[in-house]
Amino acid sequence: MVFGRPTPGNELWAGAACCKMKHMKGSLNPKRTIAELKELRSLTADENGADRVAFTSTWANAREWLRSKLEQLPGIEIHNDAAGNLWATLRGESEKALLIGGHIDSVPNGGWLDGSLNVVAGIEVLRRIAEEGTPPVTVRLVNWADEEGARFGRSLFGSSAAAGSMADQEELRARKDADGTPLPDALHEHGVDLDSALDAHSELAGAAAYLELHIEQGPVLESMELPLGVVLGTFGVERHQVTFRGQAAHAGSTPMDKRRDALAGAARLELEIRKIAKRTGDGAVCTMGGVVTKPGIVTSVVETAECLLDQRHLDADKLAAMLAEAKRAAEQYAREEGIEVEWQRIWNIEPILFDETLLELADQSIREVTSDSHRLPSGPLHDAAEVARAGVPTVMLFVQSLRGLSHTKLEDTKEEHLELAVQALDRLASKTIERVRSSGEAG
Amino acid sequence: MVFGRPTPGNELWAGAACCKMKHMKGSLNPKRTIAELKELRSLTADENGADRVAFTSTWANAREWLRSKLEQLPGIEIHNDAAGNLWATLRGESEKALLIGGHIDSVPNGGWLDGSLNVVAGIEVLRRIAEEGTPPVTVRLVNWADEEGARFGRSLFGSSAAAGSMADQEELRARKDADGTPLPDALHEHGVDLDSALDAHSELAGAAAYLELHIEQGPVLESMELPLGVVLGTFGVERHQVTFRGQAAHAGSTPMDKRRDALAGAARLELEIRKIAKRTGDGAVCTMGGVVTKPGIVTSVVETAECLLDQRHLDADKLAAMLAEAKRAAEQYAREEGIEVEWQRIWNIEPILFDETLLELADQSIREVTSDSHRLPSGPLHDAAEVARAGVPTVMLFVQSLRGLSHTKLEDTKEEHLELAVQALDRLASKTIERVRSSGEAG
Repeated sequence: MVFGRPTPGNELWAGAACCKMKHMKGSLNPKRTIAELKELRSLTADENGADRVAFTSTWANAREWLRSKLEQLPGIEIHNDAAGNLWATLRGESEKALLIGGHIDSVPNGGWLDGSLNVVAGIEVLRRIAEEGTPPVTVRLVNWADEEGARFGRSLFGSSAAAGSMADQEELRARKDADGTPLPDALHEHGVDLDSALDAHSELAGAAAYLELHIEQGPVLESMELPLGVVLGTFGVERHQVTFRGQAAHAGSTPMDKRRDALAGAARLELEIRKIAKRTGDGAVCTMGGVVTKPGIVTSVVETAECLLDQRHLDADKLAAMLAEAKRAAEQYAREEGIEVEWQRIWNIEPILFDETLLELADQSIREVTSDSHRLPSGPLHDAAEVARAGVPTVMLFVQSLRGLSHTKLEDTKEEHLELAVQALDRLASKTIERVRSSGEAG
Repeated sequence: MVFGRPTPGNELWAGAACCKMKHMKGSLNPKRTIAELKELRSLTADENGADRVAFTSTWANAREWLRSKLEQLPGIEIHNDAAGNLWATLRGESEKALLIGGHIDSVPNGGWLDGSLNVVAGIEVLRRIAEEGTPPVTVRLVNWADEEGARFGRSLFGSSAAAGSMADQEELRARKDADGTPLPDALHEHGVDLDSALDAHSELAGAAAYLELHIEQGPVLESMELPLGVVLGTFGVERHQVTFRGQAAHAGSTPMDKRRDALAGAARLELEIRKIAKRTGDGAVCTMGGVVTKPGIVTSVVETAECLLDQRHLDADKLAAMLAEAKRAAEQYAREEGIEVEWQRIWNIEPILFDETLLELADQSIREVTSDSHRLPSGPLHDAAEVARAGVPTVMLFVQSLRGLSHTKLEDTKEEHLELAVQALDRLASKTIERVRSSGEAG
């Protein structure tokens, strides 16, 4: 009863309702979350937007602010791990732990919600749980260090260290920011030793579930007029530079049938990748994000067109098929245009699917606070993907982004939707705690 | 007989053959032209190609070399005009003048033939004529100042001053080169006062015909296996920046049907302009020479695509229709893609058609030295276009360019073709002299 009406037919939920009756009722205050987000904004943003780039002094200030909020919770234990992640732990009857995560770092000139929403909503959920006494399982809030990678170009730093998937320490050792400061020096200033960052992996011992709330950063929920959605997982990504090479030739003296125009290959591929995405469906996206033309002057046929291609899908086989189709098309265009084409992989990652049971709990939680839920993939990566890769059952909630905008001071979400998001996260936390507890009993 | 076999049925030629019998036979030595071109190259080129940029010291050296060659001709008068054009005059029995023109300036890292071929071939033709005594009409070689506009971005400087079409002196006064040197200062160093450059117009008094030989700088004659062709005129040109504006959006989180992709507009226009050129025919060319994409990153849909569009045709109405078709297509794509499009004219010029009678004489001259002739438009502009605009009957000869290359040290033409070119120019000069002479008699 504490957590709202039970959903008929859901046994996990029924168990939770039964169990929770033993505790006093905690009070959730979503309006406080919004007030605290505004408080954080006033401390760490200016007229250009949020400026909480990881491993800088404003980020350290934001973390101090976060720590001061958490310290007010009864029985809370707070520490930083070897990768600079901040952990706040409410020890429960079981060592099995529910993790709630987010990141307080932002891009430069960023928005007020990207990352910090979940951290601040997480404080509110922990407050509610702490009020109720010792929880049946351990509950931990983690503020991941450097999700955005804005200063050194390496995103998901803290979560990949904790997940144990960080494998580029040698390369990171040589990285510098725009001012020439080496990454290890910047980390050192904030108490992190790159060489021992992977020791953070021990934090995941006992982790039974991971929850993350985030703004959608896309237009889907707004277009469906839904405040909240459940994230199926993060897309697999194939990222390539596709270079077409033809022959520079005078725009005035070269007849059309004598040309080897590299831009024609790029143009045909740009139009074809849209068809590939539509044919593939299930949320498939393909983007040509940029073309660089050389010599790029008005009096010459284009000799070289360097295209940036990004393809994403939640299904690994479909993603591989989309890439193969694009390659076949590019080869055909090169043949037909008398030009050459070369593919160079920039980066790729496999799709990461979230936990089926948690997806179901997330849908239920959303439907308890608003009329309908929707399942959608996440295009952007999130710390949740790293945790899921580490084998911890994971799910994310998305709350609607106005105009789909993010990474700009224009990023925004209706306050009523933010309140619903805090409520849904809280219900999801309760359901998950009960699931973790009961699975422990079962085991 | 001096000038080769007469073409049956051509009365102008028949007249010339009759008249020239009064003079002694001059000797044309095309191999000397090639030797002199190599001499000029050794003086003014390095491992990167020719470097005779106008209004620089190497250009002045090349002009001194030219003057030293011309000074050896009997009865020659040499002077620079108010725009820096160098004139070498053989006074004839009539003040009516045949002009032969070219330019000894080059682009940086240019080829050995672009421009200088006609100047050096012109010396040889003047030599032959001077050997024969006083010609029936005045014959003048002009070396135009700054055809390429490589230093200040203003091509056809000297010829447009002589033609009286130069109308941008105010703007030129403010122009600077890459090192910040003002154009008027650079001109002053070479004895030219921008304010009085248009006084060069007086040089065209008495001009009855203008001939210019040039390398084709394109692949048409090579593909037809013809050494020489007659130039119908210079294309009209419409040059625009076409800017498509959509909406930057995350490549991962924005579904395909929610995108406003500026690059899609650019890609569709690139493919459509090729169809427009083919539909229009008659040598029509359309080129998208460059696209600049913003933000131009792999993780974002393209917000802005700035396209450089160049359209050319010898027929003004067809050129206007091509532009209108491209505009209609761009508007349609903008509508369909939910983006915006803006057109900004960079530059345009009307088509300039060469003289019908001279075209015929040029065809005859070519057929006398090789098997066949071909008429083709010129994509690039030439000084000849300025002279034609000034009302002087004009024609150009093209000699084959290997691989169609120019404005590079790779620019080349077979030596046997260069020899044929000198022979054809010489015959065309003779035929034109006779035409000018006889039209004077007729008048």
